[in-house]
Amino acid sequence: MKIQSSPSIRRMPTYLHRLFNLRASGQEWVSSAELAEYMNIPHIMVRKDIAVAGLSGKRHQGFKVNGLIDAILRFVGWNKSTSATLVGAGSLGTALLGFRDFQSYNFRIETVFDADPRKVGHEIHGYEVFDIAEIGTRLRQSPPKVGVICVPAASAQAIADTLVSLGIKYIWNFANICLQVPEDVIVQREVIAGGLAVLFAKIRKNESGEPITED
Amino acid sequence: MKIQSSPSIRRMPTYLHRLFNLRASGQEWVSSAELAEYMNIPHIMVRKDIAVAGLSGKRHQGFKVNGLIDAILRFVGWNKSTSATLVGAGSLGTALLGFRDFQSYNFRIETVFDADPRKVGHEIHGYEVFDIAEIGTRLRQSPPKVGVICVPAASAQAIADTLVSLGIKYIWNFANICLQVPEDVIVQREVIAGGLAVLFAKIRKNESGEPITED
Repeated sequence: MKIQSSPSIRRMPTYLHRLFNLRASGQEWVSSAELAEYMNIPHIMVRKDIAVAGLSGKRHQGFKVNGLIDAILRFVGWNKSTSATLVGAGSLGTALLGFRDFQSYNFRIETVFDADPRKVGHEIHGYEVFDIAEIGTRLRQSPPKVGVICVPAASAQAIADTLVSLGIKYIWNFANICLQVPEDVIVQREVIAGGLAVLFAKIRKNESGEPITED
Repeated sequence: MKIQSSPSIRRMPTYLHRLFNLRASGQEWVSSAELAEYMNIPHIMVRKDIAVAGLSGKRHQGFKVNGLIDAILRFVGWNKSTSATLVGAGSLGTALLGFRDFQSYNFRIETVFDADPRKVGHEIHGYEVFDIAEIGTRLRQSPPKVGVICVPAASAQAIADTLVSLGIKYIWNFANICLQVPEDVIVQREVIAGGLAVLFAKIRKNESGEPITED
């Protein structure tokens, strides 16, 4: 089955971030109209997103902020802990290690590996950086669920091969290459430059006078 | 008009990266079948992507690597220089500043700003970090086309307001909030956690036994 609702799924962390803030400020109820205005998307799209997450609101009441948070976390699969290892403690890897929302998503990076001797043995955002040469020794007994690849493109395939050999079935890949993996391994490729290409498509359309709508 | 081909557009940097590598290795021709195998997507999808970029191949010959590179760059709008400023020289901003492919995309970050006095006056990847307080002085005369926001979510709206006040119409926003901007300003929101949500959707489907196809 296609991930039909991929744009909808991608909006979930943004809803969550907003809902966490509302909760922290003491707000208990939120309407889909309020979320639609915040997200700058049509009201109907918000209602569909919330329905996709398995909730239906009460007319004139909206949704309990806590209830919506729980529903979204459960829908995405962030209501239970998921373990991960991160390989490549460069700028991007470091940025991910510092991304505090992962805790809210129960996404637990447990180990960090790098090949650079200047990083090995040091700490980044509270994580000790282990030598990539030790990845087998450290992970083989109890491999994490997800491998996060933040190494340069030229090294990414080799790292993927290693993760797969350790029994890791899910890979979040930030290198701008298409990893070759066995059929039972699932890769989510994150191409940051892809977003730049979409921005440029919007620029092109804007400058040609065509209206743009979000998908 | 909707950005209908958004997944197609997002694939363009990955094609480019592959084509750059092929060119560097001396390969002059490439077939859509070869690209499809590399990208692990259906052949027809590659042919559509190439058609979207404005090229049609010759039967049994495929495409000239150089021709395909030029077509994609021209289609996305990366065949001419685009200026940008980047605000927020933290881990993520630093990762973007080190992303060499931007040069290949003619995406030229010209200035970098931060609020942290420990960073101001120092260099990151060859860029001098300027004090955010100087952004008006430095940019007002000749604002860049694009503003890249890499500051924490809590500061992002204020930075967006500043960029808009300087006449910048296109914003690439990495903060996990929805920026409130005038109607003529276009924002591309890059939610890295969105990709994590999609990965989890794939995990869920895989564990429930449903087949997954890429979009």
